[in-house]
Amino acid sequence: MQTALPFDTIETPALLLDELLLRANIARLATRMTQFGVALRPHVKTAKCLQVAALCDDGRRGPITVSTLREADEFAAAGYRDIRYAVGYTPNKAAHVRRLVAQGVTMSVIVDNVAAAQALANGMADLAVPLRVLIEVDTDGQRAGLRPGDDVLLDVAAALRAPGVELAGVLTHCGGAYHCHGDTALIAMAEQERAGAVYAAERLRQAGHAVPEVSVGSTPTALFAQQLAGVTEVRAGVYVFMDLMMAALGVCRPEDIAVSVLTTVIGHRRDQGWTLVDAGWMALSRDRGLAGEFVDQGYGLVCDAQGQVLTDYIVTAANQEHGIVAHRSGDPARLLDLPVGSMLRILPNHACATAAQHGAYQVLSARGELQVAWPRFGGW
Amino acid sequence: MQTALPFDTIETPALLLDELLLRANIARLATRMTQFGVALRPHVKTAKCLQVAALCDDGRRGPITVSTLREADEFAAAGYRDIRYAVGYTPNKAAHVRRLVAQGVTMSVIVDNVAAAQALANGMADLAVPLRVLIEVDTDGQRAGLRPGDDVLLDVAAALRAPGVELAGVLTHCGGAYHCHGDTALIAMAEQERAGAVYAAERLRQAGHAVPEVSVGSTPTALFAQQLAGVTEVRAGVYVFMDLMMAALGVCRPEDIAVSVLTTVIGHRRDQGWTLVDAGWMALSRDRGLAGEFVDQGYGLVCDAQGQVLTDYIVTAANQEHGIVAHRSGDPARLLDLPVGSMLRILPNHACATAAQHGAYQVLSARGELQVAWPRFGGW
Repeated sequence: MQTALPFDTIETPALLLDELLLRANIARLATRMTQFGVALRPHVKTAKCLQVAALCDDGRRGPITVSTLREADEFAAAGYRDIRYAVGYTPNKAAHVRRLVAQGVTMSVIVDNVAAAQALANGMADLAVPLRVLIEVDTDGQRAGLRPGDDVLLDVAAALRAPGVELAGVLTHCGGAYHCHGDTALIAMAEQERAGAVYAAERLRQAGHAVPEVSVGSTPTALFAQQLAGVTEVRAGVYVFMDLMMAALGVCRPEDIAVSVLTTVIGHRRDQGWTLVDAGWMALSRDRGLAGEFVDQGYGLVCDAQGQVLTDYIVTAANQEHGIVAHRSGDPARLLDLPVGSMLRILPNHACATAAQHGAYQVLSARGELQVAWPRFGGW
Repeated sequence: MQTALPFDTIETPALLLDELLLRANIARLATRMTQFGVALRPHVKTAKCLQVAALCDDGRRGPITVSTLREADEFAAAGYRDIRYAVGYTPNKAAHVRRLVAQGVTMSVIVDNVAAAQALANGMADLAVPLRVLIEVDTDGQRAGLRPGDDVLLDVAAALRAPGVELAGVLTHCGGAYHCHGDTALIAMAEQERAGAVYAAERLRQAGHAVPEVSVGSTPTALFAQQLAGVTEVRAGVYVFMDLMMAALGVCRPEDIAVSVLTTVIGHRRDQGWTLVDAGWMALSRDRGLAGEFVDQGYGLVCDAQGQVLTDYIVTAANQEHGIVAHRSGDPARLLDLPVGSMLRILPNHACATAAQHGAYQVLSARGELQVAWPRFGGW
């Protein structure tokens, strides 16, 4: 079955990346942003890979978003010069941020409280070029940020009127979009994200602050926004790979998912209807996606070695290096009866989490050939 | 609060390892095995760290268990010469196993079906010193292996009567112990594991096979077995660190857990009773432990920077680099009101999974000093 694929040299489990699907996913969002005339600042936290990031902006090494300063280090070393760290700043990150600035990187950071803003002003007071700071705005009640109408917004902005720092704008991430199924809900959530960020910016402007940047984004809202008036940039991460969560929301189809875990059948438990494979949670991650909310895909949806979805076969259980593949119904008679040594691909619930379990991407080119692996990094 | 601790130089999130607790956990199982006079073959999959493994056998570089051939590579390079790969063998691992054998490592592998045994016999036929093979036995119905009474056991043994391979014994892992709460249940499960493995060995011996090794183990069964008659070795992994799953079973107390994730408060959502920290699922893992079965500890139990458990504060939600700490009750009035920049430690649900998210251990010595970090590796 898998003779046509160049997998003989791959020891499993391994993370496969289909370059054709990757390029299509990247083009889909890029096209949309071009139509809106709004800048895209890709979030490199999903792939943590220079080769993937290069495809996002045709190798221009333009603006990027990071979730760790380690990502900033890696991309700075590769020549990126406009890096936005989109996790709330704390004083123990000061030395690291300053090292990046000293390398010539235009760093920007975010805060959502006066204490962090003051710590930032104290820690950066001597910088010749002020550090760009965005105020995090909460447009969905899911995580961090200040509500657009919160008066603390103005207090934070005031605390940033200090040497070494400057208010660059507002930033929001509407993670609530990960709980919206279908076009109508996604469109509404995208508008909620946009409107909240723009309102926060307007309030700051009315208080006399220049607010040059209004940054919004998540993969679902970026792809479903119908208008972006007042927005200066969109951030998105998982759009490059897509995953079963995005498929559950209606953002993509399972066939659009560019990453999968290649695995090998190691045995069977015929009485239970189980096919055992050598991809456990170490290779798949423990991410259960939207199992409690929409569809339970176990630890991933099973495809044959060519990537064809084997409908209703999922990884129902995972130990560290063992996965159990079974029919969704649990019917033992529906054993996936492939010989020991057969290969399968598992589509991930959450591409960010699954990719994080691996040190490299095995890249399948458009011609179905394996390229030199693309490394990815981790850590902080 | 944390002035007495040497954390100023640590950027969070980071994986902390308390050496005193680590040594106590290691001593606990070692003492027990000495009492039984049974060999311990530590499973290095939990720590994936040479320094931790060295503490397990006083630096003797004795027998170890691995869950990946990458672990075998790393430990072989460090001088380990008796390595057991405890995940079912598949033909695409042949070249890797042979590379290890060529380095002088006494490798042993496991199989639970005739096809894998035949593939092994074919792949290793030319080896001068036969590869040691154990038949995996299923003593709890949870995963792989042959039932002790299954006649296929004899077929597999027969397939291993071939040049280049030899039947070394039987091996079982009673993961069912992870679902047993309290002494009585754990003791019974340990006996079930022992009895099943010994019975399988006896059946093979009656059929004329030499079965020198009977290998059993998991942390709960290793610590709760009341007798080990017929057993030649015990394997265990997570005993070195312990975790909230082991605490939920009654195997340890939360205070015994040697690893935690150091994190920093980045903000608050007072209306929700949320304290936001810079440890999300990337630092904590997505492992939810025994949330559905025993106690739901969210993504981990919160301690102050000194390691004192803050009773009933847990990480209730996790994004990639954000964690939400809240009171278990959900009562917003019980906000953990610590200033931005304060540090906390999060005890892991599952130490194997949490440690896997990090590249090194920040080791706190018995004197409360930070040592040079101990690296850990990942991958396959």
